[in-house]
Formats: sequence, structure tokens, C-alpha cells
Amino acid sequence: MTDKKLVTPRKLQGFWELMPNEEMMFENMLSKLKVVFENNCFLPLDTPVAEYSDILLAKSGGDLDKEIYRFTKGNNDICLRYDLTVPLARFVAMNYNVLEFPFKRFQIGKVYRGERPQKGRFREFYQCDADVIGIENLPLSYDAECIKLYEPCFNAIGLDCVIEISNRKILAGFFESLNKQDKMIDLMIVVDKIDKLPKEEIFVMLKDLGLTEVDIENLFAIISTKGNFQEIKEKIEKITDNVEYQNGIKELETVDKYLKLMNMKDGSFLYNLAIVRGHNYYTGTVFEAYIKGKRSLGAIGGGGRYDNLCGNFIDQNMQGVGMSIGITRLFDILRSENMFDNCQNLGTMVGIITFDETFDAGIRLMASLRNDGFKADRIGEGKSFKAKMKEANRRNIPFVIILGEDEVKNQTYTLKVMQTGEQMTLTYDDLKKKLK
Amino acid sequence: MTDKKLVTPRKLQGFWELMPNEEMMFENMLSKLKVVFENNCFLPLDTPVAEYSDILLAKSGGDLDKEIYRFTKGNNDICLRYDLTVPLARFVAMNYNVLEFPFKRFQIGKVYRGERPQKGRFREFYQCDADVIGIENLPLSYDAECIKLYEPCFNAIGLDCVIEISNRKILAGFFESLNKQDKMIDLMIVVDKIDKLPKEEIFVMLKDLGLTEVDIENLFAIISTKGNFQEIKEKIEKITDNVEYQNGIKELETVDKYLKLMNMKDGSFLYNLAIVRGHNYYTGTVFEAYIKGKRSLGAIGGGGRYDNLCGNFIDQNMQGVGMSIGITRLFDILRSENMFDNCQNLGTMVGIITFDETFDAGIRLMASLRNDGFKADRIGEGKSFKAKMKEANRRNIPFVIILGEDEVKNQTYTLKVMQTGEQMTLTYDDLKKKLK
Repeated sequence: MTDKKLVTPRKLQGFWELMPNEEMMFENMLSKLKVVFENNCFLPLDTPVAEYSDILLAKSGGDLDKEIYRFTKGNNDICLRYDLTVPLARFVAMNYNVLEFPFKRFQIGKVYRGERPQKGRFREFYQCDADVIGIENLPLSYDAECIKLYEPCFNAIGLDCVIEISNRKILAGFFESLNKQDKMIDLMIVVDKIDKLPKEEIFVMLKDLGLTEVDIENLFAIISTKGNFQEIKEKIEKITDNVEYQNGIKELETVDKYLKLMNMKDGSFLYNLAIVRGHNYYTGTVFEAYIKGKRSLGAIGGGGRYDNLCGNFIDQNMQGVGMSIGITRLFDILRSENMFDNCQNLGTMVGIITFDETFDAGIRLMASLRNDGFKADRIGEGKSFKAKMKEANRRNIPFVIILGEDEVKNQTYTLKVMQTGEQMTLTYDDLKKKLK
Repeated sequence: MTDKKLVTPRKLQGFWELMPNEEMMFENMLSKLKVVFENNCFLPLDTPVAEYSDILLAKSGGDLDKEIYRFTKGNNDICLRYDLTVPLARFVAMNYNVLEFPFKRFQIGKVYRGERPQKGRFREFYQCDADVIGIENLPLSYDAECIKLYEPCFNAIGLDCVIEISNRKILAGFFESLNKQDKMIDLMIVVDKIDKLPKEEIFVMLKDLGLTEVDIENLFAIISTKGNFQEIKEKIEKITDNVEYQNGIKELETVDKYLKLMNMKDGSFLYNLAIVRGHNYYTGTVFEAYIKGKRSLGAIGGGGRYDNLCGNFIDQNMQGVGMSIGITRLFDILRSENMFDNCQNLGTMVGIITFDETFDAGIRLMASLRNDGFKADRIGEGKSFKAKMKEANRRNIPFVIILGEDEVKNQTYTLKVMQTGEQMTLTYDDLKKKLK
């Protein structure tokens, strides 16, 4: 063996991989989210990790983004997916005739981006999206539904959320009222930076884009508005009577009505008209999700309303609204804040320690306990008693059963509660009760 | 829109993708298996879909198999994984110092093989493996554990299993006793084909490999043996006193003892010495899993004992034993045998039908029901009553609530059980009871 050339075992940099105890916590988190999505009647989808390149790059007109993993195999030009939205668009377009609309789907899956790995940035990481797709006119109640969805999702993992909501039409209408349609994208980008740059710098950028001081003052009046719907409406409705602007306000009002009908908690949502979201495909409602009391950690998710999802694939106007949760970030936060303390013992729950003569009885006990739904395993097969106890400690196993010859003879079980050191001798039925 | 060039929406051939209703059933199956693995104290692992090529190809000495998806990105030579075993070996070697051994892990994940797509063969498909890895000497009780594991797995999805078990040492010892060590691999390959080819053809192949008629007779005496352990032992133990051969029989005897201690059902396992498994890395126990009463469907999984898992990565002898379930095949079988009949309504359970004036009340009801754990959704928002009822039927929604103005006024709910046509008017509390 030693004369063989070894390959150093290593993992691709920036690719997601957890140690088993962390993986248990991560899967625990995912399964809780999954239950919420299902409970809200979103259907699961699991698209391939790879797609034809012309499908994935249709939006960009076929330009190869250097972040994308692209390769050929035989005659096929293939990309690893960089998000879950384009595969959704492909799926909906392909199955347009057999799906029920509005089509509500969620997907939790890995995506690939070849960016330089750095703290908090991965090349392979999970995305978690829930979207509602409709034909032509998708009602605004679905915008509210996607926002409301954060509440049970966050609650399921022991957190409270605050969703900050806006509608892109308000700013779009405002810029339109200033005849700045041609600068729209640039102006939105500046607004998106409002939290990250000093006010003076923003001021200069806006002036460079042709806004007057009065325009800028009005813009700040809009985007510095934060509060419940009535508060923001009173502050901004008089600024311009531009139709798009007023439509944006009306749409927000409708969403607000539904959020209240859906019984979303008062402190769980507010309106912040500085929210625009980076992606230009959003056309109406936009929102960002924060952990309540921890806004400084940044948005843990976001989403909004978009038009024409499948425009590159079929000649049919599909509208959608979607929400996403940054689950790898969320997991990092939960882990670093020790919010998984109660998940330390997801592995072996009952360790069975035997002696040479009682090993077979131990195997029989292990099988019985498993059959009765307990996570039982033998500890340190072949090792000394001391080594077995050490291992049980090291592995954080909460309950240990010590099986000596007397116990086997009397059909009793000596149970040790590791945290307290408490020790008791029980019948099998009492043992089961105790372990429950 | 119409003057835009459209890209035909299509999926990579042979890549796994289910429609949402099937995906629900598939995930339902996976989550049941997952519970069994966890209950048996196997830890979850989720390795990246891609690995450095020299890692994945270490076993083959770096030869590029044409089935493998391989590409470069920047300076990295990358392959998509073709199984879950090599990534496990890499993971264990990398984390050798921090893992507890025996290390029990399960993984359910996609793997990639660029073979020609055909019925039942995929280029992207799921594998489901459970392995136990030990340092130097892994006890035989783990071989039994992996075999026994099929029983709760199959039971969890409503099936019974029959596991056919052998030990490679028996045939290896037999061929050694004939001084055929140099032809070992070829001989094993012939034995592996015994079920697929006519006996005469096998006979010729064995003769070509240098076996005499007496040898072949003895070989057939061994491999045609099927039954419980005592039966096969009596039939074959006298054939040769070769040490390896006798060791194989002894190991089987030990595994048999543990299977009985683990309370595996009598009809759930038997010994079939024709089982060798294709992979040459198996060194001891080998087994194949069948659906009880449906052997003709072929093996739904298999596994065995192997040495030196990490031999390409670290200078440390790691032994393992593993079992795998062909879950994409299993799913196809369950689906084609209509074994998912009871899973038709995993989506929306309660459809809410409202009229213009009661729509808001319907949204409020939807939120309440969801909050109380029911999968409720409004049906056909904006459509006519008739279209709504049609949609509820088409979508197979079992319960429909019709919410008229009277109901809203009286705070009652008219529930229609779609299968029977039964209709009743209930308070919210009674509605909840009825839906449970």
C-alpha cells in the first residue's frame, strides 16, 4: 500500500459540504421549511442540475457569463444552473399545456456560480424559492401570499421576520413624471445603493443623472418613508398624479388589505419605499425579509412580482410573483448564534454498552429499540468498558444502557442518563417509557 | 414579443425530472427512507455534485471514462460525480481525524453518467447509499446491519423484501483451490452472468477458462445452492477445505447469527451463492435485494463488504460495508404498479370557492385553515362558480368549502366531500374536526 501514489483528498473550493452533525441541523431546517411550503399548497419541483446552454443563457442573448459553469459533452452544450428561476421558466414553458395555473411551486436545490470564493460566498450553494405563475393576469392576492409565507417559514425555525415591502411602480412612475424613462435603470441602481453609500455621494449621482434639487428632495421624501400603509400613503400620495405612480400606491394598498386578511402580525411587515431589489425583472411588488431585531445582518431573502417569465421560450405572457430565502446564509446565522442548541442529539440517542458475554443480547436489544422507534446503537464494539463510556461521552449520547450478565439473566436494563449521572434498572416496558 | 426569437424549451435528455404530483410521491418515498436511516443511527451526508477529476478518477488511474462528465473551469479540472462511494472515500480521508469510527453515513443524491439514454437508464439519477466505515477491523455485525436495513426500508414504503446473501470468499476460495487465482476476475464475471445466459454457454465459458468437468460440477453445486444457512452449509462445506472457502462459510454463519438476533423475518433473507455482484471491490459479504414475490423485476439494490475504501487517498486501511437502494427504479415500479394510489392528494386538500362578495372572507378562511395545519387554497380566483367547481374536480381536491354571503353572515361553512357529493354546513370548530 505504501508504495502507491496517493492523491491528496480535497474538495472543490467554495463547494457546500457540512460535517454530519451540521448536516443534520441543516436538513432539520430544510424539512421544517418544506412542511410550510406544502402546507401553503406549493408543489415541489426538482429540475436537473444542468440545462442546455441556450436555455440558461437565453435571457442574456447567449453571452457567456464568466461565472457560469459551461461545458460540452458529445454534441451537447451544457451549463450548470446558476439559479432556480430560469429552470422554472423552462419547465413551465415545456409543460404549459398540462399544468394548472396559477402554478405554485417551491424548489430547494443547489446552484452554481464560479465566482471567487470568499466568506459567505459559495460556488455551489442552495437556493430556496417559492413562486406563483399565472397566465396574463395573476391576482395581487398572490403577492400578499408570498410575503405572508415568510412568517410561518421563519416561525418554523424559531425566528420572527420583518418584511419590508414596496412597489416598483411608485419609483418608476415618479421618474416617468420627471421624464427620466431613459435613465430608469441607472436611477433604480442608485436607489438600491441608498443604504450602502453616504447621502452626499447619492446626491451627486442623482444630479449627474439629471435630477434637480427639488426632484431629489421629492425622491428622498419617497424613499425615506417607512411605516404602515396609511403612514406612507399620507406622506407620498400628493407628490405626483402620474398614473403609474398612483397605480403603485393602489397595488400596495391591495396587498396590504390581503396581508391583514391573512392575519399577518402587525410587526411582521412594513413599507419601505427604498426597497427596489437588484434584479431588473421585477415590475410591481418587491420585498425583502429580515430577522426581527437583527436588520443589521442584512436581508435573508426577498422577491417580488415579474412579468413575462417565459418570454424567451413561448409566445405567452406568464406573470409571476416569488419569494426566496437565503438558506445557506440563514443556516450560517443560526449556527453562529447557537440557535441549534436543541438539535445536538439528532444522531444516536441510546448507546448500548455490553460485555463479551452480553454482546449478542445487546444486538437483540438494539434491534428491539430501533423497531420501537428509538435511535439505538451499540457503542465501541470490541473496545474496553472504559473506552466505551468515553466514546458515549465524546459522542454526546444522552442515554446509555449498560448490559451486564445479571441484567440479561433478569431481563432488566440499567439506564444511565448521561447529563445527570442518574442510573436506574428498568424492565423493557419501563425503559421505553423513560426514553420517551 | 412575437418578433422575438424564441428558444424551444427542452430538457437535457435522460436527466431526471418529475411532474409535481409525481415529485410529491417521490419525495414522500425518500422522506420515509430517510427516517429509517436516521432511526438506524446513520448520519446524513451531502457532498458536492462535482469533484476534482483526479479525485474521482483516482481509482481508474486517471483514465477518462467516456461516460463521465468532465470539464475545466479556470485552473480546475472537474468531474460530475458518477457515484456516491468515491465522494464518501474522499470525505472520510479528508476528515479522518475528526470522524468517529465506525462511521455510519447515508446519502441520497444525484449522480451523472453520460451513457446513451434508454428506458430505465438515466444520465442524471438518484442513488441512495448507506455505508459503515471502520478502521482496520470492522466487525461482521455491521454486515448484518446493512442487510437488515432493507427490511424497515421496504416496509416503510409498503413492500416486503427478500435479501439474497453470499460471501465472495466462498467462490474465491473455491477457485483458489483449483489454482485459478489468475483467472479469478474472469471467473467471477461468468458466475455473475449465470442468470442471464443459457447453461451450455456458461459451461463453454468456464471450460475456456480452464475448469474441468468435475470443477464445473462442483461450481454448479455451490452456486445452485439456495436456502437457509443450515441447508447451504450442509450442501457445500465438504467440497474443499481451502481456508478462504471455509472462512467464507464461517463469516456467513456469523452474519446469519446476527440477522436472527436482529429479529429479521424468516422469509426476508436467504442464501444464494450465485450472488457475486458486478463490482470487483467487494471482498466478503455480498447481497442483493428483491421485492418479495417479484424477483422477476430484478434486484432493487445490493451491496457488500469492501476493503481499503480510502486506499487512493490515505495510507490507512479503511474497511466498509454498504447497502444501496435503486430508488429511481423502485419509484418506477411503485408508480407502474399503482402503489401510490393513497398519495393522490398530497397537494391541496381543501379548496375554497367564493363569490365576488365573499372573496375577502375566503382569504381569511384560507389563512386560518393553513394556520391550523390544513392545506387550504382558494380555487379559480376570478373565474365563474362553474369553472371553480370544474377546477376542483380536475385537480382532484377532496374537500371543497363553498362560501356564500349567508355563510359569511352566520359564520358557518358549507363543506362538500367531493368523492361522495355529501354536503354539510358547519361551524369552524366542526369544520376542523371533520377535516381531520
